Amino acid sequence: MSETSAQDTPTHPPARTGGPVRIVGAGLLGASIGQALVGQGVDVILADNVRSTVALAVDYGAGRVARQDDRPAFVIVAVPPDATASVVADELARWPAATVTDVASVKAPILAELAAAEVDVGRYVGSHPLAGRERGGPISARADLFEGRPWVVTGSDPARRRQVEDLVLDLGGIPILMSADEHDASVGLISHVPQLIASLLARRLVGASEGAMSLAGQGLRDTTRIAASDPHLWVQILAANAASISGVLSAYRADLDAALDALNRIDRPGARKALAELLAGGTTGVSRIPGKHGRSERYSRLIVQVDDRPGELARLLADIGRADVNMEDLRLEHSPRAQIGLAEISVVPEAADRLTRELTGLGWKIAEESA
Amino acid sequence: MSETSAQDTPTHPPARTGGPVRIVGAGLLGASIGQALVGQGVDVILADNVRSTVALAVDYGAGRVARQDDRPAFVIVAVPPDATASVVADELARWPAATVTDVASVKAPILAELAAAEVDVGRYVGSHPLAGRERGGPISARADLFEGRPWVVTGSDPARRRQVEDLVLDLGGIPILMSADEHDASVGLISHVPQLIASLLARRLVGASEGAMSLAGQGLRDTTRIAASDPHLWVQILAANAASISGVLSAYRADLDAALDALNRIDRPGARKALAELLAGGTTGVSRIPGKHGRSERYSRLIVQVDDRPGELARLLADIGRADVNMEDLRLEHSPRAQIGLAEISVVPEAADRLTRELTGLGWKIAEESA
Repeated sequence: MSETSAQDTPTHPPARTGGPVRIVGAGLLGASIGQALVGQGVDVILADNVRSTVALAVDYGAGRVARQDDRPAFVIVAVPPDATASVVADELARWPAATVTDVASVKAPILAELAAAEVDVGRYVGSHPLAGRERGGPISARADLFEGRPWVVTGSDPARRRQVEDLVLDLGGIPILMSADEHDASVGLISHVPQLIASLLARRLVGASEGAMSLAGQGLRDTTRIAASDPHLWVQILAANAASISGVLSAYRADLDAALDALNRIDRPGARKALAELLAGGTTGVSRIPGKHGRSERYSRLIVQVDDRPGELARLLADIGRADVNMEDLRLEHSPRAQIGLAEISVVPEAADRLTRELTGLGWKIAEESA
Repeated sequence: MSETSAQDTPTHPPARTGGPVRIVGAGLLGASIGQALVGQGVDVILADNVRSTVALAVDYGAGRVARQDDRPAFVIVAVPPDATASVVADELARWPAATVTDVASVKAPILAELAAAEVDVGRYVGSHPLAGRERGGPISARADLFEGRPWVVTGSDPARRRQVEDLVLDLGGIPILMSADEHDASVGLISHVPQLIASLLARRLVGASEGAMSLAGQGLRDTTRIAASDPHLWVQILAANAASISGVLSAYRADLDAALDALNRIDRPGARKALAELLAGGTTGVSRIPGKHGRSERYSRLIVQVDDRPGELARLLADIGRADVNMEDLRLEHSPRAQIGLAEISVVPEAADRLTRELTGLGWKIAEESA
């Protein structure tokens, strides 16, 4: 338990971001940023309306509580969208030299709110990391939450914008420069509209028969997964970006009407062609999404059959441990009525072939291996 | 590698299905069924309009070519939906004693087509395995494609229906008895409507800016993944089940209109409440899906902290095994840079408290427990 290995103590290059950094809002995003910065030796001050949230985030290594003599040079506001503009205004007023950024998922409405309150936004740089999890709170924080993820940076002052870009790079994210309006239109299309559509689809399941639900498979699970997100948070996001979303949704509704029309007169000439063109458009659209596999691009996956008997999975993991391969992720697919489960194991690509050989040699059945 | 162990040579119980079995259509489903049956020693005859497809499927171990003296007792029609009824009729006529089943994803329209052609359907048992892959053809066939997957069986003759149920069990599937109408309504809701909605959403991406696409993440990837499926096949499925789909889609459209209406007057009283209720309905709906997410309703989840060291997870699972608790599902959340991983363990609610106590007693830290 007390041995140390090279893996226990990763060494980071020195952070570009200088401390102290003040993070307001110690939820998932704030605490994840804090963990990553603390891991790079940056002095991080945590603040949150809810005192117990700060305590929890401190326990999880996301920073320290504030002191009277703190003079942060950089403030990151990570509170819910509705509260962001007023907290940004407060922080700008409180720390007259600091750069202030935020992580809210809309940008133009926050600028508009600051302008309406006659706040000088010269030191404000709006930003938005495209990262998150279904679970919130500091307990779910992960220092690697932003790794490889795009992070939009807006704002007009190059030096202050650079400070935020450096933060993004320290966290392993990919800084993407955009105007606030371009950002809002973009996330409306690729994030907010899909969220609403997934929710409306999932809502159809509320009154479904048990028989129908017993047939549900991976397709339904994937298309509705994000509908499990917090409605309270999402109302704020959708409301703040209502105009962008409404535009995309109106075009979507026109396609939906065309599909319904074709289905309602399916035996008439042209109906199948109309449906086929709508579906083909979807095939074209989905092919535009970069990096289809996301995370799985970095890891190889082995799918191993595991008998549904107590101890079998433990035996598999012990075998993997003895092969001295580090598992990056593990998911178990288990059908309640089936005798067999599938364990999906992610490992670095270099280790995949060797692990496959070793497990196969030990009698494990590898169902599939994908790059 | 050359040693044999009990696990290297899995011995199947003798197949319930007696041969010879004739499979018409040697694509993904037909060849997968063939592979699984051949693996259990059943004599499988393959037929396909395309001669090279049969040759390929034979190479992939899915069966053999037909002989003059073949007298199959059981025929499985695995051709595209539009061709299914006429092939079923041909096979019923050609083999006057055989039971004939099919695997098409709609059931009532096939019965209607057979009735219109005045075919006696006494020996026909419609069925539908809820299994597939994005890739088609015998090259993508897998003997385990149906393992743990639901497989709907219709039909009125108990003995013939039993023959199809036995086939499903031989393939590791879960036979689910339903009427043709109930089947079509169910798959309309949980498969066909999600397919169409995913395609229409993906279609919005056709004209998206490069900037917007660079922000795409896992949420968009998941909601649109199935839109990559073959439009030609899906037009057949949607057209065959048009009435069921149209009903669900009309209700969905009413919700979409309500959402659009709320977005267009977002600052007026009641608009946010209307949006929140639609989103909350989605949260309720998604929780009904069995498997990964719907699990949360039927199972309690324990989130256990696991040190990021080889062997730790195996030790945890061994401790769970010794507590004699059956794990229904397991997910590992692992941060590359963090010292700690979280193992999310699903168990039946009755076992959750006891397992929490036992694991805590053994020194494990339970981060969260949710019903």
